[in-house]
Formats: sequence, structure tokens, C-alpha cells
Amino acid sequence: MPELRRDPIIGRWVIIATERARRPSSFDHVPVASRPEGLCPFCPGHEDKTPGEVYAAGRPHGAGANGPGWKVRVVPNRFPALKIEGDLDRQAEGIYDRMNGVGAHEVVIETPDHARMLEAQGQGEILEVLMAMKARILDLRNDQRFRYIVLFKNHGVAAGATLDHPHSQLIALPIVPRQVLNELEGARRHYELKERCIYCDIVGQERKDRTRLVYENDEFVVLAPWAPRSPFETWVVPRRHESSFEAEPRERLSLCAQALGTALRRISTALGNPPYNFMIHSNPLRDPPSPSYHWHVEIMPALTHVAGFEWGSGFHINPVPPEEAAEFLRRVVG
Amino acid sequence: MPELRRDPIIGRWVIIATERARRPSSFDHVPVASRPEGLCPFCPGHEDKTPGEVYAAGRPHGAGANGPGWKVRVVPNRFPALKIEGDLDRQAEGIYDRMNGVGAHEVVIETPDHARMLEAQGQGEILEVLMAMKARILDLRNDQRFRYIVLFKNHGVAAGATLDHPHSQLIALPIVPRQVLNELEGARRHYELKERCIYCDIVGQERKDRTRLVYENDEFVVLAPWAPRSPFETWVVPRRHESSFEAEPRERLSLCAQALGTALRRISTALGNPPYNFMIHSNPLRDPPSPSYHWHVEIMPALTHVAGFEWGSGFHINPVPPEEAAEFLRRVVG
Repeated sequence: MPELRRDPIIGRWVIIATERARRPSSFDHVPVASRPEGLCPFCPGHEDKTPGEVYAAGRPHGAGANGPGWKVRVVPNRFPALKIEGDLDRQAEGIYDRMNGVGAHEVVIETPDHARMLEAQGQGEILEVLMAMKARILDLRNDQRFRYIVLFKNHGVAAGATLDHPHSQLIALPIVPRQVLNELEGARRHYELKERCIYCDIVGQERKDRTRLVYENDEFVVLAPWAPRSPFETWVVPRRHESSFEAEPRERLSLCAQALGTALRRISTALGNPPYNFMIHSNPLRDPPSPSYHWHVEIMPALTHVAGFEWGSGFHINPVPPEEAAEFLRRVVG
Repeated sequence: MPELRRDPIIGRWVIIATERARRPSSFDHVPVASRPEGLCPFCPGHEDKTPGEVYAAGRPHGAGANGPGWKVRVVPNRFPALKIEGDLDRQAEGIYDRMNGVGAHEVVIETPDHARMLEAQGQGEILEVLMAMKARILDLRNDQRFRYIVLFKNHGVAAGATLDHPHSQLIALPIVPRQVLNELEGARRHYELKERCIYCDIVGQERKDRTRLVYENDEFVVLAPWAPRSPFETWVVPRRHESSFEAEPRERLSLCAQALGTALRRISTALGNPPYNFMIHSNPLRDPPSPSYHWHVEIMPALTHVAGFEWGSGFHINPVPPEEAAEFLRRVVG
């Protein structure tokens, strides 16, 4: 059984996944090579190579589950970081705290086409990916053990991806991660002082200033944040205040798909298809709608190694000002 | 002029180093190849290839500065992330905060021997490296602009090193990094509750429990922490309470050198000379000696990519329990 453990000093929780444990000799420091396409477990016709699907969209009426014909498919991760069964069983071990690693770990297969990267997909296709994510959140939040769902994409080996077929992931957690709490707390402090959402303030200032603005449509802005941790860090933020991703209706998610696709295409064009990560930052599952917190997407191209300085201090060195990154991303076609 | 910028939401500061800016096309996603040894600016005889030294040890009496004969040499970084001259000039930009990127960025050249990695060095050699670090802290803390010095080592390209010659670095900052503040705050909360240092409690429990203990001598323990962020994360912690690295006398730093060398050698043997980072965590420069904070070294082998999940949530997935890592590191010779 994997374990959740909390650093007693700063309150950081980690998963200790005993069943994913590897021998030291299995670390070769070389990125895992991608599998030949014929063996890809995410390709149509190989549906039996994954655990049974928990969601699928696009199949013709009457077609059975776990067969081909889907446009988007969500399956449990075959090597989950957390287990879906069991109680949390919170325990002390001397001065330390632990609980069982209960949670869900699912894979969103974004397209049946092995080679069709998310950034190459059209607005309608990306919308179906976002709708799949929303459907999974609405289902998983019925499980009262879960408090937060981390929705993220690792694109490319250097960004942590182990399979080439376009996919993103979600992990439902029985805790709210420290970094999310920090964000919520920071937004709450601003609200207490000003009675305004700080993300709404950011959207307002960036739309006025325009130096860090990359793109906007009627509902979303794409911007380079004021203090990016790495070169070309890019955020997609709803213009209207909304604390939860899953509260967005289909019409607004369609414009989110357009903004997200534009951001990814421009990053891809500008930087030559770099590895990247993105994560959807949203209000915790058990919290009521928040006047101070505002959901958004943070995209992080994996251009630099995270070195000792960043690890130790949380203090990142970024060689590209966001104004230059934004100017560059405004100019490229995508 | 580089800038320091603060994320307005969670209070994270970053350096925007405009003079280190690179064109997007210069990112090739491939680790930088090491230079041929003949061009190494850190090798003896090439002292004129670095800025003038700020510290050197081991030269025979009467030998001039910036020539060969040294055992350890400290020079300003030729491409510093921060600049030593100027005022902080704190400014607002709408809702954002900024100040000038004033600071020091120095390189500790650990040995004249290009191929002699730190983990291959003897206790006496590593002691001289630690004494050089201490001397630089004692000098730099006279500059009232500096509040914290990050002392760290990037070993190997995947851990962020750009030169092969064994070296570590220090960055003196006009702020205390967020992650350090989080640590100080967590330690303070524990002290307020218990009137004990939490690191002293950890040392006590780990020495009693022994499952996560790797090595100890009369003054230091080497341990796998309870909640490691990555496989084989390893800490070197003084057994006696002391909040600041630079307050340690030479005799205790000699035992620190023995413990640190042992930890690095065992990691190197166990994992096949992996890239790694370490950082010295110490009390801020302007703080009085603290009863709640306790300096220590955190070593992080760079075995896994930091992926989207970790970036977004601060919630790391670690496939190796610390008890297994510690058992492995207890058994290897080193």
C-alpha cells in the first residue's frame, strides 16, 4: 500500500508509493525511449491493454465500451501513484504523520491518433478533452474522501511523459497540496484587504498594460505572468471570475479550448516543439465557490533543468523576461 | 539590470536576469556538452580566465593571487544571476512589486584537479571547501543589503552544471527565499508548541529508530528524511543544535566533511555516479541565533524529471521509500 507522508517541518505531503519502488540499478539517468507505435496501449484496437475505461466520447450510438470508435477516452492509470480502495487510516509515527495513499490516478487519452499532438488539434477536439476532464471531476468529487484533483499534462520525455500518444492525467487526492493552499491563502489575503479577486486584478492590469498579454478572446486571456519561474511560462485565465474549472459551461470551455490551443501552438512554433507541462489550478472540491480564488491553467515549457538553487530555495532563475516572451508569442503564427 | 520579481499571489520572488536573456532559438533541449579540458577556466594556469579571486587557500607562502598553487579558489561567477553593485530601488508596478537584482554570485572551485570529484576527495580536502564557504559567508554578511546566502552544488549536466570541473556556488540575496521562510516558520511553530527544536527531535527519533539512519559520527548524522521529495534524498544534520552553518568551528566542520563525503560517496556508489544537487540550509544572515531553526545539508540525486504534477502542486511522487534508500546506503561501501 502506498503511503502519504507529511514533512513535519513545512507541512509538505508526499506519496511514498511502495508498490512502484524501483531498485537503484534501474535508474539509468537516460530518458525512457518511446515504444514502437504498434505496441501503444492508447491506440484504437488496443483498448484491452488498459484498465477498463471510466469515460469515453465520440463512439457511434450502440458501440460497446472498451472498443474502438472513441474520440477521447479516460482510463485508470495502469501504474497508479495512489490506490482507489481503502480508508485513509491516519496514524502517527513518533513526531511524524502518515495516512494511506488513497486516491484516483487516471489517464485522459486525448485523441485516437497516435501522432496528433494536442497543439495540432482543432478547437472542437480540445473542447472534447476539456469536457472529458470536467466529467471526470464531477464524477470523482462524489467520493467524499477526495479533496483536490490535480489535472496535468506531461508532454515529452524531459517533461516526465513515458508514452508518446497524446494524453493528460488526473490525480484525485485526499488532501489539498501545500502549493495549492499557498495560492488559496495568498488570494484570500488580497481579498481581505481589497475585497477584490487578485486574478481579476491581474487580468485587468494585463489587458490594460498589454506588454505581457499574448492573446485574448471574449472569455479568456493568455499571458506571460509577472514573475515566471521558467522561460515562456504562460497562463490561460478566464476573464470572468470563476473559482472552479468544472463549473464552466460548455460554451465557455469552447473558448478555453481556443485559448489553450493557441497558447500551445505558439509555444510549439516559437520554441520548436519543446517538452512542456501544464496544470489546471482550481478551487478544492469541498470548498464553496470562492470570491477570492480564480481557476486558471499554468503552462511550463521544460527548457531548463531544475538545479540545486531552485530545489533548495524555491527561488528560480529565469533568463527570459515575460515581456520578451509575450512579445515573441504575440508575433508567431499559431 | 537584472530584476527581482515577486509573484503577487503566493509571495514567491524570482530573478529576471535581463542580461542573461537568450533567444528562443538558443534553447535546444539538449544538455550542454562539457568543454575540452584544455579550455577549462577553473584549471590551474587558467586563473586569468575567471574574474579575480575573492578567496584562495593552499598556496605556498609568498605566492601571488590569481596564479596557480591553490587548493581551493573562490571567484565571482562570470555570468552572474545578480549584480554586486547598486541599490535595491524597491518599486511598484501597478499591483506588482519589483526591486533591482542586487546580490553576489560566486563559484567555489573545490580542487585544482579537473577530474577529482568532491565525493572522491578526502575529509581534509572537503574540510577546506567548507572552510572556504564559511569564509565567504563571513565576508559577504558584512554587506548590509544581503539577507540570505544560498550555498549549493549542481553536479552533472542533468543537475544544472555547465562545467565539469568540480565546483559549488553561492548566491547572496537581498531577500530570504519563500521556501526558507516556510522552513523557518514551520520550525518556529513547533518550538512555540513544544519548546524544542524540530530538527533536534528528528535527530533524536532517527537515532533511536535507525531505519532511516545512513551514517553517524560524533557530531553529524546522515539520514533519509521521512518525506523525501525524490529517490535517495539525503540529509546531513548536526547532532548538536546550531542554527547557522557559519557559526560552526573548524573541528566540527571537519566531522561535517567526513559525514558529507560519506553521504556523497555512498550515493555515488549506490546509484552509479548520478547527477545530484545539494544545498546548505541555514539561518538568515540578519537573524539572531535561533532556538528553533537548525542548519543542515539536503542532497538530492537528480534521478527523475520534475513533471507537471510536481510543478503544479508541490506534491512530489517518490517511488523509493526512505527506509529502503537508507538501508541500501547503509550497506554500500563508501
